[in-house]
Amino acid sequence: MNAVRFHGQNDLRYEKIPVPKIRPDLHEYLGGPSLCPTTPHPITGETVPLTFGHEFSGVVEDVGEGVSDYKPGDRVAIQPIIYCGTCGACQEGVPNCCYSNGFVGLSGWGGGLAEHIVVPTTTLYHLPDNVPLEIGALIEPLAVGWHAVKISPFKKGDAVLVLGGGPIGISTILALKAKGADKIIVSEVSRKRQEFAKRFGCHYVIDPTKEDVVQRCRELCDNQGVHVSFDCAGVQVGLDAAVQATRARGTIVNIAIWEKQCSITPNMFCFKERRYMGVATYQIGDFQEVIDAIASGSMKPHDMITQRIKLNEVEERGFKSLIHDKDNQVKILVEVGGGK
Amino acid sequence: MNAVRFHGQNDLRYEKIPVPKIRPDLHEYLGGPSLCPTTPHPITGETVPLTFGHEFSGVVEDVGEGVSDYKPGDRVAIQPIIYCGTCGACQEGVPNCCYSNGFVGLSGWGGGLAEHIVVPTTTLYHLPDNVPLEIGALIEPLAVGWHAVKISPFKKGDAVLVLGGGPIGISTILALKAKGADKIIVSEVSRKRQEFAKRFGCHYVIDPTKEDVVQRCRELCDNQGVHVSFDCAGVQVGLDAAVQATRARGTIVNIAIWEKQCSITPNMFCFKERRYMGVATYQIGDFQEVIDAIASGSMKPHDMITQRIKLNEVEERGFKSLIHDKDNQVKILVEVGGGK
Repeated sequence: MNAVRFHGQNDLRYEKIPVPKIRPDLHEYLGGPSLCPTTPHPITGETVPLTFGHEFSGVVEDVGEGVSDYKPGDRVAIQPIIYCGTCGACQEGVPNCCYSNGFVGLSGWGGGLAEHIVVPTTTLYHLPDNVPLEIGALIEPLAVGWHAVKISPFKKGDAVLVLGGGPIGISTILALKAKGADKIIVSEVSRKRQEFAKRFGCHYVIDPTKEDVVQRCRELCDNQGVHVSFDCAGVQVGLDAAVQATRARGTIVNIAIWEKQCSITPNMFCFKERRYMGVATYQIGDFQEVIDAIASGSMKPHDMITQRIKLNEVEERGFKSLIHDKDNQVKILVEVGGGK
Repeated sequence: MNAVRFHGQNDLRYEKIPVPKIRPDLHEYLGGPSLCPTTPHPITGETVPLTFGHEFSGVVEDVGEGVSDYKPGDRVAIQPIIYCGTCGACQEGVPNCCYSNGFVGLSGWGGGLAEHIVVPTTTLYHLPDNVPLEIGALIEPLAVGWHAVKISPFKKGDAVLVLGGGPIGISTILALKAKGADKIIVSEVSRKRQEFAKRFGCHYVIDPTKEDVVQRCRELCDNQGVHVSFDCAGVQVGLDAAVQATRARGTIVNIAIWEKQCSITPNMFCFKERRYMGVATYQIGDFQEVIDAIASGSMKPHDMITQRIKLNEVEERGFKSLIHDKDNQVKILVEVGGGK
């Protein structure tokens, strides 16, 4: 079958690989000791080349022995977290913080950028009739924002600041809207991304190169600042502003992946009893809640798909487009033809 | 009367100042507009020289018109926070985060290092018969640790790490013991302070110059690390260790006053969904809870008093001793003679 595989830095290849075989019960395999290696190898035991794609949906072609909840033809979204099930984090109910975690489409077990994949049924979520497959492919990034808002102290009616209007910023805005935020302020430099943020429902946009983020947030929020800030940008100057733009006892939530360290001023956290928290992907429950929010119409993510390409175009019209034309793209949908 | 006043850097003077006069009702004054200046002056409007001393107890000598809850002879502890009552933080019930806050004994209104002081009744807490005046003087620093533990996610049975065995570290240990911690680990360099930490009830002491704090905490806590860390030291290397010594979804609580910025690795907070929070002094309720804990015997702070001096010895045998002999001192009690 055809697949897009990652061989190494700047080396994505569209190539033929064997069709994966159904295994009797991956669930046991998922919890097995081989998934929690004592050396720091990934749970899957696989190495590059690996098939890419951890944000995807699909149609069930076949099921293994003992599977009754799914049948051929079912339309599903895939929750891609791979976890060991035995470490302290897994035992405490936070497998997203698993000490050996990985992702389908990043760490092995195949990926969405291929014509077929075999996954454990525990990764699957049924898509309701009114949620098309292409929206199903958005559930993963939407679950990231949903999870962040859900485990943050945000409550209906709170004022929030979102740093960055990229895909995760938009995912966060959509979750905030669905959960009743009535004052969403977005700080974003790019004109195009400012427009996306507005289209998805933010109430105020600040260009941090032209306006004082701290002062604007205070003005917009009773001279106190926002209740919660979501850092979806991962830039020092943004974090500095977010801390001061957040009111006493407020929280700064970091969703961004930072490549490096950052600096904070502890006294800024002490004197106003502010809090900071990191969030990691999503947990059991988040995928279903996102699907329900889309099915009920309280979340409308369709416009996040800004381009549609084919599987053999992933490197040129996909990755390179996200690198060189990122301000105009939110999510690029890869349409993978079926059939073996 | 005699008082110890702060005139400027390294300039404490034991000198004669006028006895303060009772005012009819300081409570009005406390809420008045003059307490919330629009320019960043302290609420009190006072400038140096100021009488020092924000950790103190005393005996009521006289009361103003309209005061019925207190009478001459009553033994009281003084909660020294000065707040405006009108800013956003005060309105939201966190006057300890007041945008203009100050302290009796630091920002004006007199202080404990004098023979007499006039304070609003809202600052006073009755001492029960079995709580002596000298223990009353410890309630302020004990309330700092109590408040930190109280607003942290710590719950009975959790394992905790305390960075630093100085006065605030000990205050935190005492609060943790009273609230049911059964695994308190203290990281402290000084041999003498390690002994103090043990005397006040910590279960394990780590010398970070000789042992790996992260590894030790994981070994002592199910290979996962502690639930909550309390930073009472304010040192970069300590914070770095505390983050990694704290388990997934755990919290690092900063009580220390840092003179400067510090660095954090956001990914360390994301991948394990750790949290960080700052705490500021104490709130309404904390003083009474500390007094109750002492009266009931669940907190035994007496040994925190490591030396007793007179009012005219404050600079030489008090401040200088805390600077040059800090490892042997926790709290130095200043006995102020009564009478006008």
